[in-house]
Amino acid sequence: MRIVAADTGGAVLDESLQPIGLISTVAVLVEKPYNTAKEFLVKFSDPYNYDLSGRQAILDEINLAIELAKRTKPDVVHLDSTLGGIEVRKLDEPTIEALSISDKGKEVWKDLSKDVQPLAKKFWEETGIEILAIGKSSVPVRIAEIYSGIFSVKWAIEEVKKGHKDHLIIGLPRYMGVEIRDGKITGRTLDPREGNLYGEISIEVPNNIKWEVYPNPLVRRFHIFEIWGEY
Amino acid sequence: MRIVAADTGGAVLDESLQPIGLISTVAVLVEKPYNTAKEFLVKFSDPYNYDLSGRQAILDEINLAIELAKRTKPDVVHLDSTLGGIEVRKLDEPTIEALSISDKGKEVWKDLSKDVQPLAKKFWEETGIEILAIGKSSVPVRIAEIYSGIFSVKWAIEEVKKGHKDHLIIGLPRYMGVEIRDGKITGRTLDPREGNLYGEISIEVPNNIKWEVYPNPLVRRFHIFEIWGEY
Amino acid sequence: MRIVAADTGGAVLDESLQPIGLISTVAVLVEKPYNTAKEFLVKFSDPYNYDLSGRQAILDEINLAIELAKRTKPDVVHLDSTLGGIEVRKLDEPTIEALSISDKGKEVWKDLSKDVQPLAKKFWEETGIEILAIGKSSVPVRIAEIYSGIFSVKWAIEEVKKGHKDHLIIGLPRYMGVEIRDGKITGRTLDPREGNLYGEISIEVPNNIKWEVYPNPLVRRFHIFEIWGEY
Repeated sequence: MRIVAADTGGAVLDESLQPIGLISTVAVLVEKPYNTAKEFLVKFSDPYNYDLSGRQAILDEINLAIELAKRTKPDVVHLDSTLGGIEVRKLDEPTIEALSISDKGKEVWKDLSKDVQPLAKKFWEETGIEILAIGKSSVPVRIAEIYSGIFSVKWAIEEVKKGHKDHLIIGLPRYMGVEIRDGKITGRTLDPREGNLYGEISIEVPNNIKWEVYPNPLVRRFHIFEIWGEY
Repeated sequence: MRIVAADTGGAVLDESLQPIGLISTVAVLVEKPYNTAKEFLVKFSDPYNYDLSGRQAILDEINLAIELAKRTKPDVVHLDSTLGGIEVRKLDEPTIEALSISDKGKEVWKDLSKDVQPLAKKFWEETGIEILAIGKSSVPVRIAEIYSGIFSVKWAIEEVKKGHKDHLIIGLPRYMGVEIRDGKITGRTLDPREGNLYGEISIEVPNNIKWEVYPNPLVRRFHIFEIWGEY
Repeated sequence: MRIVAADTGGAVLDESLQPIGLISTVAVLVEKPYNTAKEFLVKFSDPYNYDLSGRQAILDEINLAIELAKRTKPDVVHLDSTLGGIEVRKLDEPTIEALSISDKGKEVWKDLSKDVQPLAKKFWEETGIEILAIGKSSVPVRIAEIYSGIFSVKWAIEEVKKGHKDHLIIGLPRYMGVEIRDGKITGRTLDPREGNLYGEISIEVPNNIKWEVYPNPLVRRFHIFEIWGEY
């Protein structure tokens, strides 16, 4: 099975470790044995001017997933919305009303579906590929989440390299670890129940840039990547 | 403490990774230090003709547990039904009505208890041993679950050896890994919080049989054992 | 960020592995990289005469946390009560009524807040330091929990050394492991998603004292420390 999935993650935190905005949306193509991405696309957001409602994230995810799926022709597309695996093209008002989610979730989705349902329907009509709101149950969504953490680390490194910032605190997606070594950023799930899910991208880090990874003291099972320049 | 527990698991999956039916019910005897089975009994089902309601599984589990308990005389028997550890012989209608489970669960148990309550009552009258519906909280039930995965792998190997199938996709119980080496199938929990829970049985695997273990992409934290013959 | 947190844990179990009472309350000071305690205070309870309602535990925790915080001047204090991180000094009746917790939890807190709210208010007025009911989300609370397990092991060793008991069964806090080696008791989380959270204290164990750590068969993911003297 060949699956495209998308997710958004990695947050700039302020000095009191509160999130300011999210950093990167990643779409991945995952194939057997389903433990890393075969291909990926990334879109960076401006975390300092971010729509924290999650609305922009979902639109970015579906658009980026469709872009990758058009090129790679997977069997199915997975989005990080936990609606029981329903086909997004079928998300009309009565269907959303019948979902076993909170009333608040229903309002959000009735509004969101105006944008995403037509995108999914058009993509399905053109390609026959379904876009499923499977969320937490999907391994490819988790792999996309891990890549969003890796690209958020890369973004932070570039910001410091370019001199835009001399210090950044990044909140990584849930229980993932990050290592930077031999010209690579590697991100791995810290949950062995998931199997050895990981991702890897290239990076150049100058010697005067330092970093540290440690638990977020305010949110158990989430970790922080902190980076700074030494001049 | 000496505990007998039973559970059912391991599923034949179709090519789209949907479950067709469950494979094996296992009863185990577990003693201190409570990390593997001292004795076990297995009953294989026909996964291609399976009662997916779960009714048959529970009947098989209680019968197999009683069979092992008659021989080994444990202190208590644990079943994989999460009803707060209640004694199964006491499961009459008013008691079920008072349980803090869903209305649907109550209907299922009112029906099921007609069969299992008399079995538990008779066994208790004969032996003084209680059968508890403890479910997810029990370590011996988890060990029985791991063995059901191991025996499902053994079943798949035998099916391919006998030429009944040349390819099988088995869904393993939640977060367990499987290794085949030196004439043994070893299954282990992938959740270190549970401690080092494992099971092991003997097996002969001819050289022309190949296998692979990888994450189930559709159900995070569950893994797949895929096996095929090379001719 | 410098955080003081407190928690209570470690239980004496009877031969059927049922809890008799809790053993130790620990306050910890945690600083970056937030994986162990920089300082700690411990208060032992009498597990054979224990208030199992949890009321005494919360009072002990807030008092011990305040004692450590007066000396170490942290940025904030975390208590092991999962009320969404609310400031304890603000816990009046209308605020408790508005919390999204169970009705039973509201009754307990309306009663408890009569004692703890004035303590938190007075401490805040004197020092400006907030005491937050953050509970499960806090890493320092988890570190305090691990230390409560370590000190419960120490308590058990001392009881056997002094000849008060020749055999004790201790229920450790959730998914933590314990090792005794080279004059040290080390406790570690068994959940790698939390990162490498641990604690360590000194101990002298005579050669005639033996112990074993194994899963609690009745409560999955909890482990037992059993200790006995050999004479």
